[in-house]
Amino acid sequence: MKNETTSTDQNLSEQIIKQILNLWTSRNKAFTDFFNKYADKDYLNEVAPGRNRAIYLLGHLIAVNDGMIPLFGLGERLFPELEIFTGNADKSFEINASVEELKTKWASLNDVLTTKFSKMTVNEWMDKHTAVSSEDFSKDPQRNKLNVLLGRTNHQSYHLGQLNLLTVKELVG
Amino acid sequence: MKNETTSTDQNLSEQIIKQILNLWTSRNKAFTDFFNKYADKDYLNEVAPGRNRAIYLLGHLIAVNDGMIPLFGLGERLFPELEIFTGNADKSFEINASVEELKTKWASLNDVLTTKFSKMTVNEWMDKHTAVSSEDFSKDPQRNKLNVLLGRTNHQSYHLGQLNLLTVKELVG
Repeated sequence: MKNETTSTDQNLSEQIIKQILNLWTSRNKAFTDFFNKYADKDYLNEVAPGRNRAIYLLGHLIAVNDGMIPLFGLGERLFPELEIFTGNADKSFEINASVEELKTKWASLNDVLTTKFSKMTVNEWMDKHTAVSSEDFSKDPQRNKLNVLLGRTNHQSYHLGQLNLLTVKELVG
Repeated sequence: MKNETTSTDQNLSEQIIKQILNLWTSRNKAFTDFFNKYADKDYLNEVAPGRNRAIYLLGHLIAVNDGMIPLFGLGERLFPELEIFTGNADKSFEINASVEELKTKWASLNDVLTTKFSKMTVNEWMDKHTAVSSEDFSKDPQRNKLNVLLGRTNHQSYHLGQLNLLTVKELVG
């Protein structure tokens, strides 16, 4: 009944990837919880004076995470209309979506990503993503899908730290 | 020469852990780079009005990361005098250290952690940390050291996002 006798190394790799996916899921939940905390209009505020608005960061996170679908060879982006949030700063373009619409897209994206990720094998996670050539991948086998997921999870934590600085004025009753 | 024939599964779990360690190292470097960007006095500023000062977040990160040494059963904290930064908000206690001193401690801690982590085997990473009982660990084997490292890496990214909001006034020449 000891770990050493029942766990093969394949099990170990699977367990590690499962832990990484669980962390991803928990960080998504923290992000979702943040956007359910206040009234939608509060997310039009900047996280700090002169900095990104919360609505922009929501669009940014959807767009960046949506990019994993083509990057992992799993299909097309769900929301190509939000790709503008990936390479452009806040206030350099008009946001043509409400907080409510973005929240709905965020939830749909996570449903789709969760389903797709749950079907991926260890070998798929360790395989190259579509933005790296076979030649470059053979030189640096860490340029795999798992590394992208680890990086995107940290990217999300980075922006969640900023979002938690959002100041929301209490209504004076 | 194909991956499938040269990589054993043990290699796979080792490779995954190596990737996680590389991410940890790269996030440490980003943090170090941030604290080498400005004059030491600039880190006495708050990251946003009324929020944590950068010097506090530096002490906080040292203290939280230093806690991994006892948590992984690798010895005692290097800087027990900084443990006050883990459970106490900024400005609730006096910071008895300069930015320079904290930066030196941050660098020493990372040297020690890097050396200790590099010697850990896959099985050690997958084993329980010292704050979980054997009984609880058998119910939830994800409460291992690797999970702590993944969480601490995201914790660091979270605060780096906030630090990057720091406003430093340019000197008027």
